Amino acid sequence: MSEQRRTELGNLGEFGLIDKLTGAFVNRNAGTVKGIGDDAAVLYRDAEHYTLISTDLLIEGVHFNLMYMPFKHLGYKSVVVNLSDIVAMNGTPEQITVSLAVSNRFPVEALEELYDGIRLACEHYGVDLIGGDTTSSGSGLLISVTAIGVVKKDKVVYRSGAKPNDLIVVTGDLGGAYAGLQVLEREKEVFRANPDIQPDLDGFDYIIGRQLKPEARKDVIDFLAELDVLPTSMIDVSDGLASEVLHLCKASGTGAMIYNAKLPIDTNTSTTAIDFNLDPVTCALNGGEDYELLFTVDQQDFDKIKGNPHMTVIGYMTTPEQGKYLVDSNDSLIELKAQGWNHFS
Amino acid sequence: MSEQRRTELGNLGEFGLIDKLTGAFVNRNAGTVKGIGDDAAVLYRDAEHYTLISTDLLIEGVHFNLMYMPFKHLGYKSVVVNLSDIVAMNGTPEQITVSLAVSNRFPVEALEELYDGIRLACEHYGVDLIGGDTTSSGSGLLISVTAIGVVKKDKVVYRSGAKPNDLIVVTGDLGGAYAGLQVLEREKEVFRANPDIQPDLDGFDYIIGRQLKPEARKDVIDFLAELDVLPTSMIDVSDGLASEVLHLCKASGTGAMIYNAKLPIDTNTSTTAIDFNLDPVTCALNGGEDYELLFTVDQQDFDKIKGNPHMTVIGYMTTPEQGKYLVDSNDSLIELKAQGWNHFS
Repeated sequence: MSEQRRTELGNLGEFGLIDKLTGAFVNRNAGTVKGIGDDAAVLYRDAEHYTLISTDLLIEGVHFNLMYMPFKHLGYKSVVVNLSDIVAMNGTPEQITVSLAVSNRFPVEALEELYDGIRLACEHYGVDLIGGDTTSSGSGLLISVTAIGVVKKDKVVYRSGAKPNDLIVVTGDLGGAYAGLQVLEREKEVFRANPDIQPDLDGFDYIIGRQLKPEARKDVIDFLAELDVLPTSMIDVSDGLASEVLHLCKASGTGAMIYNAKLPIDTNTSTTAIDFNLDPVTCALNGGEDYELLFTVDQQDFDKIKGNPHMTVIGYMTTPEQGKYLVDSNDSLIELKAQGWNHFS
Repeated sequence: MSEQRRTELGNLGEFGLIDKLTGAFVNRNAGTVKGIGDDAAVLYRDAEHYTLISTDLLIEGVHFNLMYMPFKHLGYKSVVVNLSDIVAMNGTPEQITVSLAVSNRFPVEALEELYDGIRLACEHYGVDLIGGDTTSSGSGLLISVTAIGVVKKDKVVYRSGAKPNDLIVVTGDLGGAYAGLQVLEREKEVFRANPDIQPDLDGFDYIIGRQLKPEARKDVIDFLAELDVLPTSMIDVSDGLASEVLHLCKASGTGAMIYNAKLPIDTNTSTTAIDFNLDPVTCALNGGEDYELLFTVDQQDFDKIKGNPHMTVIGYMTTPEQGKYLVDSNDSLIELKAQGWNHFS
C-alpha cells in the first residue's frame, strides 16, 4: 500500500466507500442483469424469471447488542433483514445461506438458540437454509446472510423506475424500531448501574418488538399482486425514510415532496419519542430498521390502494429541479437529508 | 439461554457444530435440489441447468495474517477460495458478492488494494461482482464472499457419487501452500525480533505463491469436459487431502486406499518441509489451502486421464468395510485421519 496517502474510512461514508471500491468493475456475464446498486442483484434465470441475490453483515457491537438482543431474536432478525431486500425487488425469497464467525466465549447452546430463530424465520417465510460457513472470530459474533429469491421478469421493481407525479407510499408505521432501541438502551444503562433492578419494559411491547423482531413485508408484495398494482420503484426502509427516499430519487432521477403530517407513526412510538425528548418525525425519518417498504405508484393506481390499512401515501415524486423536500406542519419546506448510519465515523 | 448447560464450541469441531445447528432444518422449496453438505448448494435454474451457490468467511487472525498477506493477494484469494467450491461441483462460476467488515484502523487505500485483487480475480475467471455489504467491525478485517455459478444438470458432480474401485485423482501438487505458510511465519518471527532484517524469501517463490495466490482449477474442469470424463465424485482440497478423502468416503459410503508414494509433491515443497523438520507427506495430507481438486473416476476412464500432467491417480475407492487407509513406503497400512483445522480448539 502506498505510504504517502491515508484516507480515513469515515471521510467517505458507506455509500461513498462502496462507489469508490466498486466503480472500476464491469459486468461480463450475459446472466448479470443488474449488479451493484439496488436492494438485490438481478440475474437471468429462465425465459420468464429472474433470480435475486442480496447479502448483509450483522456485527456484534455495531448492529446488535447481546445485552438486550436474545439469540433467538437475533437469528430471526438476521434472516428477515435479508429477505426484506428480496421483497423490496417485488420478489419471493426462496433460500438463504448463513455464515457465522463466533468467539469461544459463546457456548454451543447460544448458537442453538440463534439457529432456532433462523429456523423460525425460514418456516415463517418458507425459505430453505442451503449453506454457510462457520468459523471462529477473534472476538464477538458476526453473521453474514445471503438471500436468494425469484421474481417474474415483468414484475421486478427497481429503485430507478419512479417518474414525477408518482405517489410515494410507505407500508406499516415508522420510527418504532428506533424508539424501541431507546428503551432498550435506557434499561441497559439502568442494569449496568444496578444489576438488581429488573428492566422495566411494561407498555413498550410494540416498539421493542419492532426493534427485536421485525418482519419482511412479503404480505404487502402479495397484496399488491392481488390489487394488480406494480410499483414503479421500491426500496426497504433499513436506514430511515429520508435516506431511502433519497435513494429512490437518485436512482430514478426525480425530486420528491413528502408530508410530515402524513407519516405513519404509531402512538407508542410518538409517546416514547416524546419521553426521550425526541421528535417522533425525526424518529420516522432517520431512525431506520423498520423494514417497511417504500415504493412509488402511478397516480392511476391511487384508487386501488387508498384506504388500505397497510399502506400510506406520504407524498409524491417531482422533477429533479424541484428538489427533495419535507413539508412540515407549518407548510414550510425542509430539505430532505439522509441521516442514515455512518458506521465508520 | 439455559443457564444449566454450557457446551464449549471446541468440543464439537466445525463439522460437528454445523451438523448440530442445521440438523433440524428441512427444505421446502422444489427449487432446492441440494442444500447443506457439499461444496456448493444446488438450485433448480431451468430445464437444463442448475444454479450453484457457495459462501465462505475469511477472518483476520484466523484465515489470514496481514503481516505477510498483501491486501491485493488477500482480495484475489478471497474470491478464488469461493470459486473453487463452484468448480468442485463441475460448475462455471458467474458472479460473486463480497461483504467487508473493517475497522477504522484501515485506510481507504488498503481497501482499494483489496478490491484491485478482487477485480483481478473477477477478470481472470470471468465473474461479475454483483453486490455486497460494507460495514465497520469492532476490530480487524472480515471478508464474506458468496459465489454463484451454473452447471448443466447432467454434469453436476456431488461428493456422494463414488463407487468402490473408482480411481482417486488429485490435480496439481499438494502441501505447497502449507510449506509456504511455514516460510512466511518464520520470516514474520524474524521480522518481529529485528525489524531491520529484510525477509529472506529467495527460492521460495513457488510455495509462497501457493499460499498467497492460489487458483481455482477451472482449467481442470475444462480439460475433463474435453476428455469427456465426468467424475463420479469431487471436492476441493481446502482442509487437506486426508480430510477431503474422508468427506468423499462419508458422502459416497465407500472406503479408500491411497498411496503415499503416489502423492504429487513439488520438490520445493519437499525440501522446505524437510528444512522445517516436517514430513512432506504430512504437509500434503493435512496442510490444506492447496485448492486443488480431488475427484474419483470410473476405471473405464483411466486411459483418458493417464499421463495427463495436471492429474495424478493416488489410489482407489474400496467398500466401506475395507476402511480408509494410506499405504506408506513400507507397504504398511495407516488409517486415514482428518487433521483439518478446528478453529474453535
